[in-house]
Amino acid sequence: MADLPELTVQGWGPSGDRVATVAAREGATAPDDGVLELAPDSGDGLPRAARALLARELGWTPRPTPPVPVRDIRLAPSRLPADARARFVALLGEDAVLDDRHARLGHAGGKSYLDLLRRRGGDASDAPDAVLLPDGTEQVAALLRTCGELGVVVVPFGGGTSVVGGLAGTDADDRPVVAVDLRRMAGVRGLDVPSALVTVGPGMRGPALEEALAADGLTLGHLPQSWEFATLGGYAATRSAGQSSTGVGRFDDLVAGLTLATPSGVLELGNPPASAAGPDLLGLALGSEGTLGVITELRLRVRPRPRSSQYEGWSFRSWAAGLAALQRLARHDLLPDVVRLSDPDETRVSLRQSGGLGARVLRGTLRARRRGAGCLLVVGWEGLPTIVRARRSAASSVLRDGGAVRLGSRVGRSWVRHRFAAPYLRDRLLDNGLLVETLETAATWSALPGVYDAVRRALRGALTGPGRRPLVMTHVSHGYPTGASLYLTVLADRDDDLPIQQWLTAKRAATDALLAAGGTLTHHHGVGADHRPWLAQEIGPLGVDVLRSVKQRLDPQGICNPGVLLPD
Amino acid sequence: MADLPELTVQGWGPSGDRVATVAAREGATAPDDGVLELAPDSGDGLPRAARALLARELGWTPRPTPPVPVRDIRLAPSRLPADARARFVALLGEDAVLDDRHARLGHAGGKSYLDLLRRRGGDASDAPDAVLLPDGTEQVAALLRTCGELGVVVVPFGGGTSVVGGLAGTDADDRPVVAVDLRRMAGVRGLDVPSALVTVGPGMRGPALEEALAADGLTLGHLPQSWEFATLGGYAATRSAGQSSTGVGRFDDLVAGLTLATPSGVLELGNPPASAAGPDLLGLALGSEGTLGVITELRLRVRPRPRSSQYEGWSFRSWAAGLAALQRLARHDLLPDVVRLSDPDETRVSLRQSGGLGARVLRGTLRARRRGAGCLLVVGWEGLPTIVRARRSAASSVLRDGGAVRLGSRVGRSWVRHRFAAPYLRDRLLDNGLLVETLETAATWSALPGVYDAVRRALRGALTGPGRRPLVMTHVSHGYPTGASLYLTVLADRDDDLPIQQWLTAKRAATDALLAAGGTLTHHHGVGADHRPWLAQEIGPLGVDVLRSVKQRLDPQGICNPGVLLPD
Repeated sequence: MADLPELTVQGWGPSGDRVATVAAREGATAPDDGVLELAPDSGDGLPRAARALLARELGWTPRPTPPVPVRDIRLAPSRLPADARARFVALLGEDAVLDDRHARLGHAGGKSYLDLLRRRGGDASDAPDAVLLPDGTEQVAALLRTCGELGVVVVPFGGGTSVVGGLAGTDADDRPVVAVDLRRMAGVRGLDVPSALVTVGPGMRGPALEEALAADGLTLGHLPQSWEFATLGGYAATRSAGQSSTGVGRFDDLVAGLTLATPSGVLELGNPPASAAGPDLLGLALGSEGTLGVITELRLRVRPRPRSSQYEGWSFRSWAAGLAALQRLARHDLLPDVVRLSDPDETRVSLRQSGGLGARVLRGTLRARRRGAGCLLVVGWEGLPTIVRARRSAASSVLRDGGAVRLGSRVGRSWVRHRFAAPYLRDRLLDNGLLVETLETAATWSALPGVYDAVRRALRGALTGPGRRPLVMTHVSHGYPTGASLYLTVLADRDDDLPIQQWLTAKRAATDALLAAGGTLTHHHGVGADHRPWLAQEIGPLGVDVLRSVKQRLDPQGICNPGVLLPD
Repeated sequence: MADLPELTVQGWGPSGDRVATVAAREGATAPDDGVLELAPDSGDGLPRAARALLARELGWTPRPTPPVPVRDIRLAPSRLPADARARFVALLGEDAVLDDRHARLGHAGGKSYLDLLRRRGGDASDAPDAVLLPDGTEQVAALLRTCGELGVVVVPFGGGTSVVGGLAGTDADDRPVVAVDLRRMAGVRGLDVPSALVTVGPGMRGPALEEALAADGLTLGHLPQSWEFATLGGYAATRSAGQSSTGVGRFDDLVAGLTLATPSGVLELGNPPASAAGPDLLGLALGSEGTLGVITELRLRVRPRPRSSQYEGWSFRSWAAGLAALQRLARHDLLPDVVRLSDPDETRVSLRQSGGLGARVLRGTLRARRRGAGCLLVVGWEGLPTIVRARRSAASSVLRDGGAVRLGSRVGRSWVRHRFAAPYLRDRLLDNGLLVETLETAATWSALPGVYDAVRRALRGALTGPGRRPLVMTHVSHGYPTGASLYLTVLADRDDDLPIQQWLTAKRAATDALLAAGGTLTHHHGVGADHRPWLAQEIGPLGVDVLRSVKQRLDPQGICNPGVLLPD
């Protein structure tokens, strides 16, 4: 059921073959659990139910819009001077300097809708001139010094899953660009069990870390939808949030310390458990998106694997009632570890496009209770059984008082099973003439309803045309004492002539609207190139200047990920 | 019971008469609750039991060492030029510019042992040349611009309770100094109940805010020992922690946003509930200790007043067993909201110097169980009754498994009653020839025992002499998943000839030792002037340079609290 609303801007394919991510991946759909599964394929890679539903909702005519074959992607010759290449080889070794077509294409841009549109059209102008594979803080630090001397731009590369143009590599001075791929720095370097701290390389991925921690009964618990591909260093550089962040905390909260190699030297930041020794410099590295240097090591907070995990579904009659209940949970520190409230559009589409016995049973249940689709809430509780029991019981009272009806644990279990499946479906939609993109924000509980209305109005205004209208589906996925996030999935019939312009117009309208209504520019995707024009509105021109002064000290030549985060 | 170990560096007297704080305050001792109270006075303002105990422990001969009378304190004439004074009057009004003796003395320095020693000796060389009372962000911003033009140093003044020389006002260029007292900006400016956010002026104090919030059933819950006098702006500027910080979070965690007026303009920082829009600039203002500007407004997270509050005492046979049990609680997210584990020295002295039936009963109980004094643990649980019950029950199992014996709720209640009383006792000790000071740090659970040993060894080495030895009492007062704080109270016979040198030597040895063992320079007191020499060791020379680059952008003339935080 949760597949379509889960559609995100991350359209990864299998690791190591990122250029091919635009192709649908066989077996990418989650296994049928007999509850809520994808409907049968209609021949074009799309579930039949989704196809019919979307055609009706959007005024969309399905049509093949395949990507150009990889061999036809246009790639300019590498601009890396021979002497620079020689310096890199001397520093890192011959096998750590790649400038073949395959390596360069594999490090071109990220996974935003715009990134994918460009690459599907055969444009790889954002590919780096070479890919470097350093190993260790000292190599990275030496590399950054060298790039500073040579005037070579550095784009740090983790999982390549940025959805905001974080790998744009755009340089105003048009200098050569290298991607610094951190895959060789991907291991566990130390585990302090009593202090619940693990030291890892920045190129490590979540699944590998979870596997390593499981031996000691521990978990990190950070589960963004990009979990299969994104790296731990990338989470820190972009201030990621995961599906359990309401419970375990945002990635910011999980970083106890890190090493940041910069062109001016190495910073060791963070002093667990806590310090009052001046301003928090660790917080400057988190969210720096590669503009200050490269994160080369992380100390992360881990915790015991939960002894109890309980997921369940609830139904509210209205969005307002759902938000009010979540706010009440937040007020009393009763928010579940996972919380996900879908608005009426997301709930309706989820229920209709899902096949399987479970969805039919669920629809029947709702009808029997004389409820429309309403708003679906999925909650998850994790931890010690007695504590889970007490929290869940107290929270259930609040939900019931707020008019919610319990749907049971099958809905929750289904969500857990499908949680990483959606990006694969997205690729298939892109193959068939659709615009598919997401955006997200957060606001205080007081501002949240206004932000929701404003951003939806803006998107509908920008994407509605003769016989065409967008589908905008929204959910809250992260709750805080003071407010919550909003995650919006947008589908529309693609403008085949000006697809990039079509989305840029909608994105601009949505961003202007959400900022004016009191939302933040981004809750967990980061700034990248895409949000850069609004950063001064978010933190003020003087705030931007403060960041610039820090960058000037650490990266005086401006080689670290220019074109990202800081406005020109 | 908890009086003596509660001795802190804050020796405030009644508000508004800070110069006289060295005198004992009648009625400052907490009311006798029939459980654990101060023993009868022995005529010199000291409880008789404490007097005898300390004489024996320290090799100390009680002797009167009164402060010089206020009228004899030496104060140089104000150096504020007449034209600067006129500019300030034009900006703020005549009644907002004070340069009389009373006002200047009342804003001289903070409350560290060294501050008090100097003032007791009649030295007020750290007094500002004038005191300004701006009202509102615009006035503060204009004032800072003007001071930048005039070359007048600004020391922001909240409660005046710094214990690390945060109000030193030392300027390498010897420019005139004004204290900017924020008492006129001390009200609630807005309350957003659904979002649990209150907007306040920086000069507001905790008691006034709690009173204002109580009408809506809300609380902030930040309770440092300086609570009666310190201001909310000061908590933010110094990264304060309170007695309930394990539960409600450090003050950092309670600040959702703030306004920082700087000589270069005004910054609005923080975007609740959360954002990924670049590095966290709010974290640069927190802990900036007045070196970047003046905090002129705060948005703070509040919560419902707890429906259940349960405090109780436990006893461990050893420090190691107590630490191990706390670590296990932390591991399973079961730390109480208040947690305070005293080491054997602190426990022993607490029990012996306390009079009252309760202490006698407690001593009897421990004897009956064939336990020595051991280590006392006070825990407090707050929140919804069902959740408190579940957490307390699970935690009690862990404590019992760790060998602890429950002492009951009277011990806990007594601690709550006496929690703010100790600083008053300190003044009486200073009047009688004692050195009394505290220091604090934090470390990971793995490093904590080593830090504890190292810092005690250093203090004993520095303060032991013929027939004299220090008493060093320690407790853990803030627990985290990754580690905990250590709070040390040091008493020794004062060196009447070189009292300042005596403490500087001990402080230097202790700080070197705790840093070498893996502790942080300060867990919640801040850097100020006293910890400044070690900041580069804590955050690295490049980290210091990053802070300098931020300061250079916001305060190019270096007028904001020089001599504090950043090394020269």
